[in-house]
Amino acid sequence: MLPRPLIIELPENLESRCDNPIEEVRLRCTSWRVAVETNNLSPWKTIPEDCVDYVKEYVLGRSYAIDLETVSNEALKFAATVELKGDGMDAWIFDIDETLLSNLPYYAQHHYGLEIFDNILFDKWVLEGAAQAIEPSLKLYKEVQKLGFKIFLLTGRTENKRKITTNNLIMAGFEDWDRLILRGKEDHGKTTVEFKSDKRKELMEEGFRIVGNLGDQWSDLTGSYLSMRSFKLANPMYFIP
Amino acid sequence: MLPRPLIIELPENLESRCDNPIEEVRLRCTSWRVAVETNNLSPWKTIPEDCVDYVKEYVLGRSYAIDLETVSNEALKFAATVELKGDGMDAWIFDIDETLLSNLPYYAQHHYGLEIFDNILFDKWVLEGAAQAIEPSLKLYKEVQKLGFKIFLLTGRTENKRKITTNNLIMAGFEDWDRLILRGKEDHGKTTVEFKSDKRKELMEEGFRIVGNLGDQWSDLTGSYLSMRSFKLANPMYFIP
Repeated sequence: MLPRPLIIELPENLESRCDNPIEEVRLRCTSWRVAVETNNLSPWKTIPEDCVDYVKEYVLGRSYAIDLETVSNEALKFAATVELKGDGMDAWIFDIDETLLSNLPYYAQHHYGLEIFDNILFDKWVLEGAAQAIEPSLKLYKEVQKLGFKIFLLTGRTENKRKITTNNLIMAGFEDWDRLILRGKEDHGKTTVEFKSDKRKELMEEGFRIVGNLGDQWSDLTGSYLSMRSFKLANPMYFIP
Repeated sequence: MLPRPLIIELPENLESRCDNPIEEVRLRCTSWRVAVETNNLSPWKTIPEDCVDYVKEYVLGRSYAIDLETVSNEALKFAATVELKGDGMDAWIFDIDETLLSNLPYYAQHHYGLEIFDNILFDKWVLEGAAQAIEPSLKLYKEVQKLGFKIFLLTGRTENKRKITTNNLIMAGFEDWDRLILRGKEDHGKTTVEFKSDKRKELMEEGFRIVGNLGDQWSDLTGSYLSMRSFKLANPMYFIP
């Protein structure tokens, strides 16, 4: 009963890869990014200093674009399999920042998440109302809408940004959502997990069936009163608890 | 109020990368792997045919090793911050396959997850009792044990494999666990999520506080009666619902 020898061929170039410091940083930063995406690092404050170039290349390059596409495609495949009840109570929730709208131009000017989040500067950017759509999310949004889901936008942005947020969303191509839910005074002091769970609870109490939920933060998707399925978009730049 | 132009420098070599078909496959397979790890693809049956070489290189190379290390280090950091009550009721759960023990030699002979799972062949491999420890998990196991946590091993393996599993674990360096929980007759027909949720429920009803949970499948970590924190190890080879 001794283990029989098992031969595993090693991939070529493995050794030379290990000796390559640039490759080593890429490996370590990829591992960090995957740990972020799987919610294994929770909480985290800023990206590792070594990974600024990596994150920059990731978000500006094809990887981020492909990741966004992969997730939205999968969400759409799922949405298309759902048999809607036809009573107008099947709902899909979308987060806004880094889900429907991209704040990449802001983060590009702030070292892609290396700087500790600056509320005041970020608000200034938000108030410009210039964020562009995340294209695969816009496509998903339109398709889910066409399928007949009620569309709820659930964001950590505060009520005083309702107008600029509405304008920005419309400018970016989002139309005819059923409700835009922002943080009100009564939500002050709640974590995002608490705030969003509370809002999902209210929707469920109104009778809505929350079928899908798309967000870039685990705090969009976890907690209580969960959607049937949730989809996590990539975001290696910041973490919201 | 028009958006001001924002300049984002593109990373060098971006264009040449896109033109490189090998790089394109690597990008797509990485995206697939991250979608698996974030539970965005659920369920999935086999790895994409294009990704066999990618998965092979991943699991045999440094990436998988670094990913396993990253997660166990993070789990240990968390475990070390927990103040144990000292009543012997703080517990940590470990899954077994691809968490404590590696079945990589089996999957190396079965195209790294390209083949549809073959119960009979896999059982034959398990009954050899030759699986090696996943080293970062063994380190975490020992450290968590030293911190004073009760150790529960919760596996989808069935009761008839208790002896070989025990022997294999000991051979691989795991010692003095508090309970090894396998699938009994009463668990027949349950999904892993149901089976493991039921077992966590029983532990909690006994008064245990499940502080941490380490597994390679989302079905180890989701459902009900969740641990305070859970840690998802990488597994791009198979999916268990």
